[in-house]
Amino acid sequence: VNAEVITVGTELLLGQILDTNSLYLSRKLAEIGVNLYYKTSVGDNTGRLKAALEIAAGRADIIVITGGLGPTVDDITRDGIAEYTGRKLLPDNETMLKLEHFFKARRIKMSENNRVQAYIPEGATVIENRAGTAPGFIIEQKGKVIAAMPGVPSEMRPMMENAVIPFLLQKYGIGKNVIRSRSLKVVGLPESLVDEKIHDLFVVSENPSIGVYAHQTEIEVRLTAKAENTESADAMIEGLKQKVYGRIGDAVYGEEEETLEGKIAEILLAGKMTVSTAESCTAGLLSFRLTNIAGSSAYFMGGINAYSNEVKKSMLGVPEHIIEKYGAVSAECAEAMAKMSREKFKTDCAVSVTGIAGPGGGTDEKPVGLVYMGIDIKGSVKTSRHLFTGSRDMVRARAGHTALFNFYKLLKN
Amino acid sequence: VNAEVITVGTELLLGQILDTNSLYLSRKLAEIGVNLYYKTSVGDNTGRLKAALEIAAGRADIIVITGGLGPTVDDITRDGIAEYTGRKLLPDNETMLKLEHFFKARRIKMSENNRVQAYIPEGATVIENRAGTAPGFIIEQKGKVIAAMPGVPSEMRPMMENAVIPFLLQKYGIGKNVIRSRSLKVVGLPESLVDEKIHDLFVVSENPSIGVYAHQTEIEVRLTAKAENTESADAMIEGLKQKVYGRIGDAVYGEEEETLEGKIAEILLAGKMTVSTAESCTAGLLSFRLTNIAGSSAYFMGGINAYSNEVKKSMLGVPEHIIEKYGAVSAECAEAMAKMSREKFKTDCAVSVTGIAGPGGGTDEKPVGLVYMGIDIKGSVKTSRHLFTGSRDMVRARAGHTALFNFYKLLKN
Repeated sequence: VNAEVITVGTELLLGQILDTNSLYLSRKLAEIGVNLYYKTSVGDNTGRLKAALEIAAGRADIIVITGGLGPTVDDITRDGIAEYTGRKLLPDNETMLKLEHFFKARRIKMSENNRVQAYIPEGATVIENRAGTAPGFIIEQKGKVIAAMPGVPSEMRPMMENAVIPFLLQKYGIGKNVIRSRSLKVVGLPESLVDEKIHDLFVVSENPSIGVYAHQTEIEVRLTAKAENTESADAMIEGLKQKVYGRIGDAVYGEEEETLEGKIAEILLAGKMTVSTAESCTAGLLSFRLTNIAGSSAYFMGGINAYSNEVKKSMLGVPEHIIEKYGAVSAECAEAMAKMSREKFKTDCAVSVTGIAGPGGGTDEKPVGLVYMGIDIKGSVKTSRHLFTGSRDMVRARAGHTALFNFYKLLKN
Repeated sequence: VNAEVITVGTELLLGQILDTNSLYLSRKLAEIGVNLYYKTSVGDNTGRLKAALEIAAGRADIIVITGGLGPTVDDITRDGIAEYTGRKLLPDNETMLKLEHFFKARRIKMSENNRVQAYIPEGATVIENRAGTAPGFIIEQKGKVIAAMPGVPSEMRPMMENAVIPFLLQKYGIGKNVIRSRSLKVVGLPESLVDEKIHDLFVVSENPSIGVYAHQTEIEVRLTAKAENTESADAMIEGLKQKVYGRIGDAVYGEEEETLEGKIAEILLAGKMTVSTAESCTAGLLSFRLTNIAGSSAYFMGGINAYSNEVKKSMLGVPEHIIEKYGAVSAECAEAMAKMSREKFKTDCAVSVTGIAGPGGGTDEKPVGLVYMGIDIKGSVKTSRHLFTGSRDMVRARAGHTALFNFYKLLKN
């Protein structure tokens, strides 16, 4: 059984609102094992909605439509579906009474166009809207199901969960075919290398399947399985996951909603260790991220954002000769920054970052994107050299993320 | 001239990622007067992409596609377009050299699947990707234009703005019925108050129109006008804008892409002034944001993220009696933090933030969300008290944004 989602509204085509409804509907349909092959957005135009319905009916069994059911002139979904299915619009008595009651209770005069909301294509099943005025409806025609709901998310979601999903489960006996997925979060390997290392585990359209997605600061490897029930799907994912860990486990720091700062927090708390920072090009990002965690005051003491060389010397105490001999962007400076931070803040660990975020300031020898990091854990310091690509924002975000990843790896071992 | 946007990716159909690309593209097309009648999302399946291209070509002049151009097996857009247009995929020499150089510079072996990214349908115009490895391309065929770009927003956006839009403007001379809009950025007033103050300027479906949108740290007031040409639309917006400024101008810090850190940078650079920070609950956010600007080393010296009280005393030099008498979350402590930061970093200005981000740590007297800020400009210190709502993340983001806004306002006057 496969479905198509149609979201209706000119505001979607003018880029005035983000289409979160289709995201929600996609997820809900996947959860009950309905395949979604296409999503379409169409404006407030009856002819174009009819054309979209025609195309959708040619390639899907179930059409889920949101938006365009309100009382105004540009709410054209009701008419579009009536015309497409060749049905009359008739008033639904129960809905009409509810509407009249709604306006009476608020002492607002009910205008004629408000009545329009109670009109439903002949033979359709009404879906009650408990959070608003416009009801939804379900039509069965020529072996296809059309479910229409309002576009306001707080109205649409309960209607989907309480009426449309139960209807689909009953009609198709689906739910026997669930889709589960799990994301692994990867740092330190480029997308192409991740792909190469797990390439043979990929087989397009196979089940379970693997997707590799590049985000700004990390790579996501998403494992997806389709099975008769949750347990089987989870077992399939687990098996594949172990193989993926076998290939790239060193570069995976967590799964799903786990964060680097959260993983670091666990280790620091368990070991009763404290941390401080010394940041040049990231200028506070590490410190801000380490304190994203509630309760971080147990391990995070503080940090110095030493942006100018003067501040690196005066506030952090980096020896002048290091900056003179090697420059502020050097392994030697990163090492001194980490050491001095650990000393000044009296912490067990310290993380330092110094680099050239750009767009200016690069040279042939030290190009934009060059970043050194230092990690001092109880007096043992490790430095690393990185060359990040992208804009100033990206270099800074990637440097911060990689520093946390390096810190996590050293803490773990 | 009308267009269709096609976003490619199974992750979109499983509800795993929100489609922000089509929002951006919709807006950009509207701005140059191109009508968008449909948006379609399709999975990583060559056959279904070809079917979507066929339908789009039947109803639109311009097809803009994002996603599916990367190096992995599930990146099928290149093949789908080549098959649909009946063109061969040929290597683009310049792109191949760039790719080889990219991997060489990073000392990473370039895998075979990376080469795939340099293959382009025969006769297509390459769109350079300055922020990543996969290029885009434009094909003209049977009177239609197909523009394909990668799905990573930071790569796609500059390609749309620097290549696709100029191409469309030149080819179609469009811009006869343009929609222009302008955002005003508001801090320090709640959405309901903004709405109340400009309510009578709102008339539904009128032209120009006003939309009020609440974002996490600020309110956006968006003015939109439709007219025959850019100049008329801009004039309509300008007239309405002056009225809006008359009502809430004090709370507006900028327009469109302007940022608080950018506005602050302008004033500091013009006045040859320097700044430092002292942060407790925001722990580096202010410092990170002030250095978002290229060239910020001219005015930003550094900052102390004084998370623990010990660090507030030892590193920043806040007098012990202030913390004992008033507590770390107090106007007195915020004042001392700003003063001491200005002194230690030898800057003209300093900004401090201290508060309770939550979820724990609140009391009846000092609840979660309570934040004090201090701004020292050349020895004159102003403090303010704020009570922010929302999660830990939101309290921190709002505190940081408001501190920058307060600093901007004081600098401006």
